[in-house]
Amino acid sequence: MADLKQERAVRTRNLIMRAAAELFDEEGYEGASVSRIVKRAGVTLGAMYFHFDSKQDLAREVMNAQPYVIEPLLKSSGLQRLVDITLVWAHRLQTDPMLRAGVRLAVEQDRFGMHDSTSFEGWKDIMVSHLEVARAEGNLREGVSTEEVAQFVVGACTGMQLYSQLVTGREDLMERTCAMWRLLLPALVAPDADHAIVVDPDFGKASQC
Amino acid sequence: MADLKQERAVRTRNLIMRAAAELFDEEGYEGASVSRIVKRAGVTLGAMYFHFDSKQDLAREVMNAQPYVIEPLLKSSGLQRLVDITLVWAHRLQTDPMLRAGVRLAVEQDRFGMHDSTSFEGWKDIMVSHLEVARAEGNLREGVSTEEVAQFVVGACTGMQLYSQLVTGREDLMERTCAMWRLLLPALVAPDADHAIVVDPDFGKASQC
Repeated sequence: MADLKQERAVRTRNLIMRAAAELFDEEGYEGASVSRIVKRAGVTLGAMYFHFDSKQDLAREVMNAQPYVIEPLLKSSGLQRLVDITLVWAHRLQTDPMLRAGVRLAVEQDRFGMHDSTSFEGWKDIMVSHLEVARAEGNLREGVSTEEVAQFVVGACTGMQLYSQLVTGREDLMERTCAMWRLLLPALVAPDADHAIVVDPDFGKASQC
Repeated sequence: MADLKQERAVRTRNLIMRAAAELFDEEGYEGASVSRIVKRAGVTLGAMYFHFDSKQDLAREVMNAQPYVIEPLLKSSGLQRLVDITLVWAHRLQTDPMLRAGVRLAVEQDRFGMHDSTSFEGWKDIMVSHLEVARAEGNLREGVSTEEVAQFVVGACTGMQLYSQLVTGREDLMERTCAMWRLLLPALVAPDADHAIVVDPDFGKASQC
C-alpha cells in the first residue's frame, strides 16, 4: 500500500517535471506559468506544491536532470564514455525536452535570478570520474589534468550547441561534436593505449532507446 | 568643414555605442531603455535615431563589434594570432563593456527576437583567415580543417566564458583559455613547425593598451 502510494508520487513528480521541461523548452522560464505546467501535466496545483517549493525549484530540478537522462543509456567506460556521453547528448538535444530545457535553463538562469552551477559541475564531476578510469587503465596521456579536460569539454559543449542552434537549429551539432573529438583526442589518448577511441555519429542515434 | 562634421558624427555614434554597451552589459537588452541610453551618452533622441534605426539595430551593432575591439591590438600572425585573440579576449572580458555586452547579447539574442549569427561567424571567418596563414607557412598539421578549428574555438570560448562566469565571475577565464590551448595545440601544430606557439596569460594583460 505504501509502495503503491510512493509509486504514484514518483509518477506524479515525473509528469510535472516532463510538462515543465516541455514548456521551459518551448517558451523559456518566464513563458511557462505554473498554471500551464499543472494543466499540461494533468495534476492539481496542490500536487505541484507538494513536490516542488516553487517554479524556481522546479526549474532547478529540470536544469540539473541532464545526466539522469543520458548516463543510464551508456555502458562504455573511460575516455570512450566521455565521447559517448557527448554523442548521445548531441543527438538527443534535437528531440528530448528534458535535455533541451535543461540546457536552455542553464544558459538563461541569470535572467530569473538563479545562479546554480550544478548542471555544469555535475557533468564535470561525472566526466572526471570516467577520465580517472581511463587514467587507471593507462589510456590517458601522461600529464593530462582530468579536471581541466572535463571542465573544458563541458564548457565547449555548452557553447557549441549555442552556436549550432543559431546557425542550423542544432542540425550540425553531431558533426561539430565529432570535430571536437578529432581536435581533442591527440592530446588525451596515451601513445600506448590498449584500444582505439571510436567517434561514431551513428552511435548517438542508435542509443535512442 | 565636412570633415569636422563627419568627425563629430563618428564621435556621437561611438558615445551612443559605448553608453548602450554599458547598459546592455549591466542590465541586459530589456533593462536598457533608449531614454537611459541617450541620457548616459549625453546625446539627443534625434541623434540616436539618426545613427540607429532602433534599439535592436543598436544592440546588433554592439553585439557584432567584438572583433573591432580586439583585432587592432594584435600584431602576431597564423596560429599564434588565434591564441593571442583568445588571451586578450579572456582578459578584456573582465572589464571592457563593449566586449561584455557583445557576448551577453550574442548569447541572449533569442529573447529579444534577434537571430543573428554574425558575432559567431565573424570571429570564425577571422580565425579561418589566420589559420590559412599558418597553413601557407607550413605550420598547421596536415589534414586539419581550418573551418572546423575556427568554428570549434568560437563555440568553445562562448561556453567557457558562460561556465567561468557562473563559477568564478570569469576570474578563472584566463586559466581556462590557456587550458584550451594545451588541449588543442597537439592536434594543430605541424611536427616541423618553424616556431613554437606561446600561450602566455600575461600577454592578454599586457595588451590592455
